Amino acid sequence: MMKRVLVAIGMLAALGARPASAQSADECVPSALNVAEAKYPCLYADNRALFRVVAPDAQKVRVRVGPGFDMTKGPDGIWSVTTAPLVVGFHYYSLQIDGAVIADPATHTYFGSGWQNSAIEVPAPDAAFYEHQDVPHGHVSQQWYFSKVTGKWRHAFVYTPPDYDSARKSYPVLYLLHGWGEDETGWYRQGHVDTILDNLIAAKKAAPMIIVMDNLNAVKPGESAALFAARGLVPPPSDAPPAPPAARGAPPAPGGRGAGPGAAGRGPGGPLGRPTYTEMMFADLVPTIERVYRVRPGKENRAMAGLSMGGAQTFATTLANLDKFAYIGGFSGNCGGFGRGNDAPDFKTICGGAFAEPAAFNSKVKLLFISTGQAEGPGTKAFTDGLTKQGVHNVYFESPGTAHEWLTWRRALNDFAPRLFR
Amino acid sequence: MMKRVLVAIGMLAALGARPASAQSADECVPSALNVAEAKYPCLYADNRALFRVVAPDAQKVRVRVGPGFDMTKGPDGIWSVTTAPLVVGFHYYSLQIDGAVIADPATHTYFGSGWQNSAIEVPAPDAAFYEHQDVPHGHVSQQWYFSKVTGKWRHAFVYTPPDYDSARKSYPVLYLLHGWGEDETGWYRQGHVDTILDNLIAAKKAAPMIIVMDNLNAVKPGESAALFAARGLVPPPSDAPPAPPAARGAPPAPGGRGAGPGAAGRGPGGPLGRPTYTEMMFADLVPTIERVYRVRPGKENRAMAGLSMGGAQTFATTLANLDKFAYIGGFSGNCGGFGRGNDAPDFKTICGGAFAEPAAFNSKVKLLFISTGQAEGPGTKAFTDGLTKQGVHNVYFESPGTAHEWLTWRRALNDFAPRLFR
Repeated sequence: MMKRVLVAIGMLAALGARPASAQSADECVPSALNVAEAKYPCLYADNRALFRVVAPDAQKVRVRVGPGFDMTKGPDGIWSVTTAPLVVGFHYYSLQIDGAVIADPATHTYFGSGWQNSAIEVPAPDAAFYEHQDVPHGHVSQQWYFSKVTGKWRHAFVYTPPDYDSARKSYPVLYLLHGWGEDETGWYRQGHVDTILDNLIAAKKAAPMIIVMDNLNAVKPGESAALFAARGLVPPPSDAPPAPPAARGAPPAPGGRGAGPGAAGRGPGGPLGRPTYTEMMFADLVPTIERVYRVRPGKENRAMAGLSMGGAQTFATTLANLDKFAYIGGFSGNCGGFGRGNDAPDFKTICGGAFAEPAAFNSKVKLLFISTGQAEGPGTKAFTDGLTKQGVHNVYFESPGTAHEWLTWRRALNDFAPRLFR
Repeated sequence: MMKRVLVAIGMLAALGARPASAQSADECVPSALNVAEAKYPCLYADNRALFRVVAPDAQKVRVRVGPGFDMTKGPDGIWSVTTAPLVVGFHYYSLQIDGAVIADPATHTYFGSGWQNSAIEVPAPDAAFYEHQDVPHGHVSQQWYFSKVTGKWRHAFVYTPPDYDSARKSYPVLYLLHGWGEDETGWYRQGHVDTILDNLIAAKKAAPMIIVMDNLNAVKPGESAALFAARGLVPPPSDAPPAPPAARGAPPAPGGRGAGPGAAGRGPGGPLGRPTYTEMMFADLVPTIERVYRVRPGKENRAMAGLSMGGAQTFATTLANLDKFAYIGGFSGNCGGFGRGNDAPDFKTICGGAFAEPAAFNSKVKLLFISTGQAEGPGTKAFTDGLTKQGVHNVYFESPGTAHEWLTWRRALNDFAPRLFR
């Protein structure tokens, strides 16, 4: 509960309230995520957002961003609201029109919480690191592969560095996972993985590498797929009652995503991860990547990281396979279990006993990277402090002022990638 | 008007009506375009679709697919409707909830009509040509490039054939455009360009080629961008009244897309195309592609095609540059002007006079390919008949039973690609 309050506070920047009427719509800049020509949502200089929605016959319209804001119907029949200042970064959001939770047709949509949300980008002062610069560009390609474990075709995206085609070298590989309710498009669309790496490589801050962005949702035939249900936004089968909240996860936070299952890697599948994903990864994904791409062999050329539930999956997969990975990253998600009533764990036994013998662990792992957003609460810092006290080498990164959201994870990747394959 | 009626008829398969109550929801198969675990919309064996929507407090809910269907609220508070049988293929659709036109949160979204629509796929009997087979797979990669002409970063997707990395050869290139209101994602997401080509190449029916899928919306700084407005789904700027339908294009057809501007390439920018796009293509796009990819030089290794407004753009660009292109394709879009009160044109003067000297034209162009969907009306066939009578060599293809939609264009590409670079 404390956690949710912190997240909600994090969504509001610490700026004084200002009456909306004092601002002209002319000063409101359309969000970068809007579809062509959509002027709304737009952002004022103080990070208040103005939303406008066409819903002529609706009785009640609400925008679910930050703490949520009721909209009012104007004389032109269009609903609008100017929010309190929003925190910088990428926010999923949704509209609620007479009870239906839907995406705003004014924005491009982004897969999160198991459906295609709308989103707004509040420009960050440090945005240059994930924006296009005049540097050589790598590629993000889609890679189809058939999984023997799941019995289905699967789809990943793969970043290759700018010199991949010309240099004819082999490269180390980072396997990079999204969070709960997201998919393989998250890191390249919400995360700007390609521009972050292009900029780091051009500045010689990171080694050229391949980055594989897979979908962590993998189930065998017959295995329950309810792990990634869309949480009541879409109707249940007509012959079944709606699943109770306990089975389907907490209701969505006002931001349309928020601290539901998988936030901080605590949802279904975390903290122990999903054995099926690990099995599928070694049986199907890694062999495909190593057949199709020029991959440098050996564990010292293989890293794995993920955000939120993807961080939990990363710890589950790598800690059980330290012969295969030398670099491990958990962005707002790990195996520590903090925040689940387990704030003073025994570091000898948590995480499957992986940290019981620190010297042995340190000799096998070149980097254990653990990060969080400042507004996510103190659990992650306490986890890394506990690891350090236990003698486990680790690196801690904290994104200033941000919550369980994509700017936190873009910044984490920007700090993590330069530490790999050195 | 005749045209719209034909399209509406085309959306309904010629099957007898059957009471919905005779069908069990168990027999209803979720659409392939649904998000994970969303059971609705689903399809019965006779191509009726069952839609279910959560909108507890709404007064009126309608699904805008085919002719459009009002939904009814059940005792569980969920709205539902079983439609008449739908035509096979990919249909954009939307919901209307108390006047707001929005996407169904149950499906992945697809960019069309200037926004992220929901969509339903009615399986086609010939679907194997665009489905994954156990054959070598090429890649679709995103290619960022900075345009000097528009002053902005632009984004294209590029298909490279399965042997691109290993064979180290150079390849011919097809530039392939989407339609009105769509973007560079259309051909690989709605169109399945990669699987179509993978399957053709594996069967040795098509030459391995590079396919460049750009965004045809290109405007210079200061140039009006109103060509791709989202047609009233999103609010106008608060200081401007809503644009009249004449300026913003016809109202959306019930299917959420339909025969608005650009249908059959007649919208803004068609039939003469957009000079800015052509200028940008030669100044920025083609040089980027020829620098980054291994491209075989010469007009006999360069083709251009597009659908609907992209077909109109293709004709405008290629007919004025026959020294640069040997292969031309217009899928449900060309320069003929049929359907705009111009059904018996002078073939010596239409299309900028490109067909005035048939022998000269035939000597420069290896393929002029013109296609349409059977339910789109007779205009395209009349155009190709007229061209043939004028002595202009051309190939006509018609997709059986389909309208101005993506199955028509997948089939057109499948017929067109084997004719290239031979």
